[in-house]
Amino acid sequence: MNLPLGFRYAAAYAGIRKEERDDVALIVAGRPAPAAALFTRNLVQAAPVQVAKQHLRKSGGHVSALIVNAGNANCATRTGVPVATATAKAVAAALKTKAEYVLPASTGVIGVELDPSPLLQAIPTLAENLSPDKFDDVARAIMTTDTRAKTASEEVAVKGGVIRIAGMTKGSGMIHPNMATTLCFVVTDAVLSPAELRQMLKPAVESSFNSLSVDGDMSTNDMVALLAGGASKLRGSGTNLKAVSGAVTRVLETLAAQIAADGEGARKLVVIEASGFRSDDEARRAARAIANSPLVKTAIAGSDPNWGRILSAAGYSGANFDPRRVTIHLQNTLVCRDGLAVELDEAALKRRLDSHQVDIRFEVKSSGKGHARFFTCDLTEGYIRINGSYRT
Amino acid sequence: MNLPLGFRYAAAYAGIRKEERDDVALIVAGRPAPAAALFTRNLVQAAPVQVAKQHLRKSGGHVSALIVNAGNANCATRTGVPVATATAKAVAAALKTKAEYVLPASTGVIGVELDPSPLLQAIPTLAENLSPDKFDDVARAIMTTDTRAKTASEEVAVKGGVIRIAGMTKGSGMIHPNMATTLCFVVTDAVLSPAELRQMLKPAVESSFNSLSVDGDMSTNDMVALLAGGASKLRGSGTNLKAVSGAVTRVLETLAAQIAADGEGARKLVVIEASGFRSDDEARRAARAIANSPLVKTAIAGSDPNWGRILSAAGYSGANFDPRRVTIHLQNTLVCRDGLAVELDEAALKRRLDSHQVDIRFEVKSSGKGHARFFTCDLTEGYIRINGSYRT
Repeated sequence: MNLPLGFRYAAAYAGIRKEERDDVALIVAGRPAPAAALFTRNLVQAAPVQVAKQHLRKSGGHVSALIVNAGNANCATRTGVPVATATAKAVAAALKTKAEYVLPASTGVIGVELDPSPLLQAIPTLAENLSPDKFDDVARAIMTTDTRAKTASEEVAVKGGVIRIAGMTKGSGMIHPNMATTLCFVVTDAVLSPAELRQMLKPAVESSFNSLSVDGDMSTNDMVALLAGGASKLRGSGTNLKAVSGAVTRVLETLAAQIAADGEGARKLVVIEASGFRSDDEARRAARAIANSPLVKTAIAGSDPNWGRILSAAGYSGANFDPRRVTIHLQNTLVCRDGLAVELDEAALKRRLDSHQVDIRFEVKSSGKGHARFFTCDLTEGYIRINGSYRT
Repeated sequence: MNLPLGFRYAAAYAGIRKEERDDVALIVAGRPAPAAALFTRNLVQAAPVQVAKQHLRKSGGHVSALIVNAGNANCATRTGVPVATATAKAVAAALKTKAEYVLPASTGVIGVELDPSPLLQAIPTLAENLSPDKFDDVARAIMTTDTRAKTASEEVAVKGGVIRIAGMTKGSGMIHPNMATTLCFVVTDAVLSPAELRQMLKPAVESSFNSLSVDGDMSTNDMVALLAGGASKLRGSGTNLKAVSGAVTRVLETLAAQIAADGEGARKLVVIEASGFRSDDEARRAARAIANSPLVKTAIAGSDPNWGRILSAAGYSGANFDPRRVTIHLQNTLVCRDGLAVELDEAALKRRLDSHQVDIRFEVKSSGKGHARFFTCDLTEGYIRINGSYRT
């Protein structure tokens, strides 16, 4: 991975989680970098989300550092805001910048007070150990029930050189449209303003993290942040805007698909395409209902081509369509035409469903141009095992 | 169970499902009885639902017989409507009544043609074997993945005698508000008009089957029917209305709770009470989001008092409330006050969560009077096992 110029990273074990692996991490831009971020729409917002929003407003969309901890969400906690603020201040002191240029982020259990001491103690060490190479260390440190670190990168050749974009994310349960226990940090060395970044981020999140569902739960801590350090000295806007924006979107979509594939207990990435609806919004409703249906997800876990559950889920999604004009493909095999069963070699299809990726194509034969793509995963016993005893 | 007077029942094995246990059943009122029914709101409606609606319209809300099969939903089938119509006609012929007085109902797999021959062959035998005692036989015949038959009854003492109400239901997966793979048949010997029955049924379903969720999936075949045979010669309306209506509601609520307790793979019935919201509707949204959260449901399966997930689910429900004014009780134990953790004996609470019923009380301290109760169950590995290979 060729990382964007100008950023440095560090990770350490502060002792917030029981298991001894890195649980705090720092991402640092050389100087306050133009930035944009999107946060959870849950009514219950973790303290770091509240503080990050406040700092972003105060700094006019500029970020010097992201300080992240895993193991404790710092949500529904008495001392939440003071702890998140103190953390940002400690980072600012270590980096000789202002607290408003520091965004805190947390992930982990809700409703347990976050003891600030181990965090505050770790910060000077993190600041000393910053290095341009430790991107992957940070990606690993922010993992909770993730089984693997999730990173993606793109290079965009523009007049005068190359713009680089790199992103990391974490999340595997509690994933839902409008983001949920997802932390995602994307950095680029392009020159872009906060306003340009905001404009770029919104549609990119729409087709990636807002088109992703593992279990339908939306967390209290979600955050996607995009920082443009400018070290390439190449403009990401103007004639380069389309290429850079496309690359940012691809990075986010790749990260979202990685989350679905690593969904808690998941063995399969499921990609749902819905088309022929009256609007993209209706297509998205149908795709989301299919993605959230436990009956669909367990059928896929069992490699059962039970398309009736797919049709039924779309039917209760609120999207309007004529069931008699529906065609469904599973793994490119036609399983339903005009809302009815078709003859098929079920044993062969079952074998093809035993795959790391399952594609569901739901088409309404109509003049409608509404289209959506949605990522999810199968639902297995592993999900239950992980979530039945997360805290204990 | 003291059954209402005037109804007869029969069940048989027609060979629709592989396993050799009863899969067809007949419920018969002496003559066309005033009736009301509510059906699934899924856009995809099974053939028997379409035919039952049509017959109910045509008969002005009068029903002589309900013919039910398990093992095949007769949904998304080429021959669906002709098969459902032929079934109703065959029952009408055997009972010497009109087809429009017969409502068909089906439950089982979607998208597989329902062969009418075994059904049509079984009907004369069913008609011959009708008996006032076979209520429980029918309750067993309509079961799919249910592990036990579900029945409930009430007696209402009124001036001049006793009015009896008895109901049966089936359903264990694909259960969701607005009904889903639920068949529910309630009979009473009270004298009531179709209009009075409709008025009684709607709120009763609202607080029972529409306040019930096992997995968030809504089926294509749901139906709740209420028949008033009138054999008691006692009026269910007028001064008796409140008592009879209350008894009908209790029968439906008891049946709904039985479905939740027997949810696929479930070990625990979960009863959620939400109060202090601005409206009943908002309270219901919050209660439903808690009921549908796989994270909440798996925590309950693991007896984990992880109330943060409950707070988070209410937070993304769309209901508006101040998280800092939330109190949560689990099994009557205070676990969250003013949106924050309270000291508690977690080991003791864990033991109390190892129970057949788990009560969640979610209160917003406010002047709001909005209240709702919702039934669901825990989410266990059993759900995955059952649904990963339902058809095979």
